[in-house]
Amino acid sequence: MKVVKFGGSSLASAGQIEKVFNIVSADSTRKIVVVSAPGKREAKDTKVTDALIAYYNAFKQQDVLDAHQEWIIERYRSIALALGMDETVIDPIAENIKALASLDVKNKFTYDTFLAAGENNNAKLVAQYFKAKGLNCRYIHPADAGIIVSAQPSNARLLKDSYKKIKYLADLEEIIIVPGFFGVTEAGEVCTFSRGGSDITGSILAAGVKAEMYENFTDVDGIFAAHPGVIKNPHSIKELTYREMRELAYSGFSVLHDEALVPAYRANVPLVIKNTNNPDHPGTRIVTKRETKGAPVVGIASSNGFASLFINKYLMNKEVGFGRKVLSALENLGIRFEHMPTGIDDMSIIIREKYLSKQLEKSLLKNLSESLHPDELYIEHGLSIIMLVGEDMKEHAGVTARAARALAVHGISISMISQGSSEVSLMFILDEKDEKQALRAIYDEFYFEI
Amino acid sequence: MKVVKFGGSSLASAGQIEKVFNIVSADSTRKIVVVSAPGKREAKDTKVTDALIAYYNAFKQQDVLDAHQEWIIERYRSIALALGMDETVIDPIAENIKALASLDVKNKFTYDTFLAAGENNNAKLVAQYFKAKGLNCRYIHPADAGIIVSAQPSNARLLKDSYKKIKYLADLEEIIIVPGFFGVTEAGEVCTFSRGGSDITGSILAAGVKAEMYENFTDVDGIFAAHPGVIKNPHSIKELTYREMRELAYSGFSVLHDEALVPAYRANVPLVIKNTNNPDHPGTRIVTKRETKGAPVVGIASSNGFASLFINKYLMNKEVGFGRKVLSALENLGIRFEHMPTGIDDMSIIIREKYLSKQLEKSLLKNLSESLHPDELYIEHGLSIIMLVGEDMKEHAGVTARAARALAVHGISISMISQGSSEVSLMFILDEKDEKQALRAIYDEFYFEI
Repeated sequence: MKVVKFGGSSLASAGQIEKVFNIVSADSTRKIVVVSAPGKREAKDTKVTDALIAYYNAFKQQDVLDAHQEWIIERYRSIALALGMDETVIDPIAENIKALASLDVKNKFTYDTFLAAGENNNAKLVAQYFKAKGLNCRYIHPADAGIIVSAQPSNARLLKDSYKKIKYLADLEEIIIVPGFFGVTEAGEVCTFSRGGSDITGSILAAGVKAEMYENFTDVDGIFAAHPGVIKNPHSIKELTYREMRELAYSGFSVLHDEALVPAYRANVPLVIKNTNNPDHPGTRIVTKRETKGAPVVGIASSNGFASLFINKYLMNKEVGFGRKVLSALENLGIRFEHMPTGIDDMSIIIREKYLSKQLEKSLLKNLSESLHPDELYIEHGLSIIMLVGEDMKEHAGVTARAARALAVHGISISMISQGSSEVSLMFILDEKDEKQALRAIYDEFYFEI
Repeated sequence: MKVVKFGGSSLASAGQIEKVFNIVSADSTRKIVVVSAPGKREAKDTKVTDALIAYYNAFKQQDVLDAHQEWIIERYRSIALALGMDETVIDPIAENIKALASLDVKNKFTYDTFLAAGENNNAKLVAQYFKAKGLNCRYIHPADAGIIVSAQPSNARLLKDSYKKIKYLADLEEIIIVPGFFGVTEAGEVCTFSRGGSDITGSILAAGVKAEMYENFTDVDGIFAAHPGVIKNPHSIKELTYREMRELAYSGFSVLHDEALVPAYRANVPLVIKNTNNPDHPGTRIVTKRETKGAPVVGIASSNGFASLFINKYLMNKEVGFGRKVLSALENLGIRFEHMPTGIDDMSIIIREKYLSKQLEKSLLKNLSESLHPDELYIEHGLSIIMLVGEDMKEHAGVTARAARALAVHGISISMISQGSSEVSLMFILDEKDEKQALRAIYDEFYFEI
């Protein structure tokens, strides 16, 4: 059986929901369907979830709520009518949306309950439509599906025992329609995952029922080998491993929610990213192991906004505990670091600039200077990371040579290179101003030949 | 003024001491001479210091001592006679060597006092010879030179205040002859630096008198760009910076005692490595700053006996403090690490195998496994580090490309690359079996053209 998840744009209108129906009914193994809230119909549209946030803010400020409620209800109504459904199907949805305003504003789960209404009502609507079209299906609330989560509002984590409960879904006769994005706490409160968390719901259910596949339907033909904003018509990737996906996601590829990969990965369920608007396209398969076919680089990602803390001290290498002391200083200030390449007497700590305020930077330099007495200590800003990703990379000494040469012939300076620390990637750190040109140079080097 | 230090092979025989005399008297700015104990005259010879160790061991075991004493005294006598000196100059040396046997075996400085006798008697002999040849010179004991050290037998450190005292040597009229290798504690006990520590004495005195130069005379024409055991007739380096020297020394270049670089470096005194047997050769200058002249690589070093601890955990990157925990685990077991390249969810810790017994390895894996629950955790053995060194490297993206290509065309796999973490080096980690071939490939790439 397969678990299928549809994103907001796949459910934004009657036309899109028709496509979803066709996709689900085209394959009898698609047994569990995870539904997002209606997304944007066109670029300037408002997502239902954003409308719910506005509604909640008005509610909290004891503002007028009618317009907010009406806009949201109308959104569902227009979909239902365009699908040819009876207007009465909207009544329970309207009731549910209005009832949110009677929740206790002081309850820390009220915000999550507002937001979850987007997915929840959509799942109900979709289930009714599918049933009307003759599909043997049933809406199930996450509480009944077994998605029991920690009591961390807007940042829920699945409780481990939940998988035991979720398993039963595999034995149900009907197709199951489950709203994504939220679970319930042990006390029964609605609690959402972080934003975009419908991907997580799908991944959890796929892991829980040990699905043969987790299909994640979105509005692109899978994952591109490089960012289409920089590379014109980049190749789309047929298959990549979870490790490759993780490296690409880290450095700029944001097709999938990061945490969403974990349950499917750990349960060894292959994940396929497909396009609701082009379901015949095979999309991109994400698997735990793949056969590499000689092409060492599957994708190139880049990401800016990095800083480098440089520390040099003569004979640093002989001081036991030096590295640990530096990392403790960072931890004491709550600063996360990304990488820590070391020379003999030098050490660079790569930090995302967003974690490094002017104040923190000052404290960090002061603490390190006083505790370690380095010969040199400074922070460099405005760095980008370029990441070449591929499982076959470790065996190819030539990859580094080709990539470095591609940068060299374009006159691009490399601040740092790290290869081999990860088995599936090669990382260049360079000046932000060179990022796009570097991406193009490397893409041309590795993809021109395909 | 210059501080000049002569190694054991430069003082092993009368002929060698003649050369030293000629070198010292050829340049009137050579005002402070640091003297080692007589070294080997030919490959199978015994160094006086090693004879003193044997003497000490016999003394400690209450064994017969005559033969030991005689061998050492004879060593000095034969030098003195060959220099045409009167045999009576040996009397105080013989007395001193024999008197060692009446020291308190339980005194923790007795071993150091035995060893220091090698340098001390040689300095006295050299001073007498120089004087006889008409040089205005004077022997000065380290205690009188101001070399006051911490009370750490065989591992002395200079006490900071010593520099204040040492300064006065600059104002003396005569050429000063000082035995290397040892100082005295505040309580007046003889205490040596670590083995080979005459280099340290020279460096300390050069820093203390703010010498214009510290000349370190040995038996090679300076520092080679690569190991002559692997590369036939490698180029010798004219000039390199302390940072470059340090990187080369770390990874296999052992011309100079590591710690010996620090005092001269901190005092900004240039160091020259020269050949007693070929004093007209300019040797290798080690300076704090040098003009780079377009050649990005000044030297290539390599070193084997490394292991890599690999840790992978999905979403490791999101766990604050992960890196610090790994380093703490190492520190708790007293394991020093050399490098710590990181991927997104991966981390490699490079450790010298000599610091990693089977037992420690087991404990380390157990501790990490229990505290971090990684997805993958293993140790790889038999790795070598190849280090390309050069101040100009940071500006040359092409260096990495050329080096990696040179390895690729020879079919050599690279396990890891780290560039830019140190500003003056590019590091490759690869299989030990490929080390020599890799060194040759890279040397040919960068030096063939010269």
